[in-house]
Amino acid sequence: MSEEKQLLNLREKIDSIDADIQRLINERATCAQEVAAVKQAGGDTDALFYRPEREAQVLRRVMERNSGPLNSEEMARLFREIMSACLALEQPVKVAFLGPEGTFTQAAALKHFGHSAVSVPMSSIDEVFREVEAGAVNYGVVPVENSTEGVINHTLDNFMDSGLKICGEVELRIHHHLMVSETTRKDKISRIYSHAQSLAQCRKWLDSHYPNVERVAVNSNAEAARRIKSEWHSAAIAGDMAAELYELEKIAEKIEDQPDNSTRFLIIGTQEVPESGADKTSIMVAMRNQPGALHDLLEPFRTAGIDLTRVETRPSNTGAWNYVFFIDFMGHVDQPHIAEVMKQVGASASDLKILGSYPQAVL
Amino acid sequence: MSEEKQLLNLREKIDSIDADIQRLINERATCAQEVAAVKQAGGDTDALFYRPEREAQVLRRVMERNSGPLNSEEMARLFREIMSACLALEQPVKVAFLGPEGTFTQAAALKHFGHSAVSVPMSSIDEVFREVEAGAVNYGVVPVENSTEGVINHTLDNFMDSGLKICGEVELRIHHHLMVSETTRKDKISRIYSHAQSLAQCRKWLDSHYPNVERVAVNSNAEAARRIKSEWHSAAIAGDMAAELYELEKIAEKIEDQPDNSTRFLIIGTQEVPESGADKTSIMVAMRNQPGALHDLLEPFRTAGIDLTRVETRPSNTGAWNYVFFIDFMGHVDQPHIAEVMKQVGASASDLKILGSYPQAVL
Repeated sequence: MSEEKQLLNLREKIDSIDADIQRLINERATCAQEVAAVKQAGGDTDALFYRPEREAQVLRRVMERNSGPLNSEEMARLFREIMSACLALEQPVKVAFLGPEGTFTQAAALKHFGHSAVSVPMSSIDEVFREVEAGAVNYGVVPVENSTEGVINHTLDNFMDSGLKICGEVELRIHHHLMVSETTRKDKISRIYSHAQSLAQCRKWLDSHYPNVERVAVNSNAEAARRIKSEWHSAAIAGDMAAELYELEKIAEKIEDQPDNSTRFLIIGTQEVPESGADKTSIMVAMRNQPGALHDLLEPFRTAGIDLTRVETRPSNTGAWNYVFFIDFMGHVDQPHIAEVMKQVGASASDLKILGSYPQAVL
Repeated sequence: MSEEKQLLNLREKIDSIDADIQRLINERATCAQEVAAVKQAGGDTDALFYRPEREAQVLRRVMERNSGPLNSEEMARLFREIMSACLALEQPVKVAFLGPEGTFTQAAALKHFGHSAVSVPMSSIDEVFREVEAGAVNYGVVPVENSTEGVINHTLDNFMDSGLKICGEVELRIHHHLMVSETTRKDKISRIYSHAQSLAQCRKWLDSHYPNVERVAVNSNAEAARRIKSEWHSAAIAGDMAAELYELEKIAEKIEDQPDNSTRFLIIGTQEVPESGADKTSIMVAMRNQPGALHDLLEPFRTAGIDLTRVETRPSNTGAWNYVFFIDFMGHVDQPHIAEVMKQVGASASDLKILGSYPQAVL
């Protein structure tokens, strides 16, 4: 068979597959409309049609049963968009995020809700909380863990005075590599280009591995990667995308000082999310300042074998509390063994606030 | 049947549909791999697997056969992502765009190539051209028509010295509306909020309809929309998304001074794109400055009944040329009647450069 004929056959096959995919997506959208109709008929008119636990289950199933050739992440991303489009048909999800447009927080919002959601930038974390509390939007997206420590605290502090729940989490992973071009003389590197923030995030590694090399801050990591193509004595710090784009060789991977340089975001809302099968819970606990307080607080978790993922300590903003601990752990408050530990923690703490149980980030 | 039972049935149906969609998407990806293999076996190793004319045809077919409930635009957007993912499996498309991240040009790049493309911001239009010429990326995305006139000219001027082809176009439509909240007293409006650029784009309309009203520039149109919720004497200028988000009433639609306030972008590359069935062509023609020159130039188009979509006049940057006209028209240079007109134009002009024939924007 000639090349032309082969290509024609393949394209006809693709067209026929496309027609099937399209029919099925519209069938799925029809089912989503029927779900909404059933809920409304049941008097459930205020219920949000977006169900975080259901979305997480669908995405996990997609990733588990995926056989390729598309990888599981790409496939899950496509299903996120399909769900987003089906949902928007009934009621587009409205999301406030810490702006401006084009930030990582917007990327996190779109990663979580898909591109059919209506998203609007806010100028501060407080404003995101206020918009959600006022009911102007269904959800807010705020950063909670990243390299700029201050942001985390500001988000945590907002929970002290807010009745909002955590409905989900999003992770964006960011790794930095040291890379060179094919003409670089690796033993003669005298200059390293990167964005100022990336240079800062790799400072310790650079101090120990390249103490005497000039560090030059440029506008973006992509620009750094581009520049070294024409300088045999220079290297760049950038991410995987730049390495791929400029066909550079990574001579040292994941050189950021914080081994896990991922940025984590929380989805905040007014909804209590049912179990999805793989959940996390965040709580805020107030304790009086006395020796061994944190040890006592964590003991019930240890005994019950509950996996703690994070503990943060913050000074309380009220006179009554001395310290506030923010604790994340694996499990859902509807699970009996978690409920039991919550009872124990509640008995020994000045105050216990369950910020939310929510599906663990799928992607 | 109980509500719970009904919902369970619907969810089972959705899960089964999802499994079918997933299987088909992977089948499609396999076909895309086979297309690549056939091309490589035929010695076609340098050929780009991305075919602008083929993508345009697929998307047009998707929109034509769409029966809903998802609307055709949403459906086409999903197929753009599916094609983008299938293509990235073989060879991710590399795209340079006029940065920074989060601009309309990035939105245009993602709209056209989907989110599986590798995209990188450049700091100037010249740089985008250089990156494509150097072969570091497959395509560039540059704005060519918007409210800031200067940008257009800069893009056009770049074509004078460049051998690059236009491989496609993208349109982002932006409309402005005057909107009020339910508590606004429409006859007492004394203040209008919007972003400075939006106020400027609606200046003439405001001068004639609200000459004595205070115009207040705020950070974003979304902020303008939010603000009027608490001020009974204020209105806002913003887009559809803000109206939807804040449940505002549009009291005057499409009030921008330029009736077509859409922003148009060009895809530039090294490829000549075959016919897609609905194409546009852009040419650059140099003429000596003599009376009736433009009239003479356009005559063959009129006679042949070719639809002109745009004519721009620019001073030439070489001594030999007096004026350069940029002309866009419907049709493809591979069509005999277009080829004939090109021959006539070429005979009367000092110089004729065909910048490219490419599929008309689908979405």
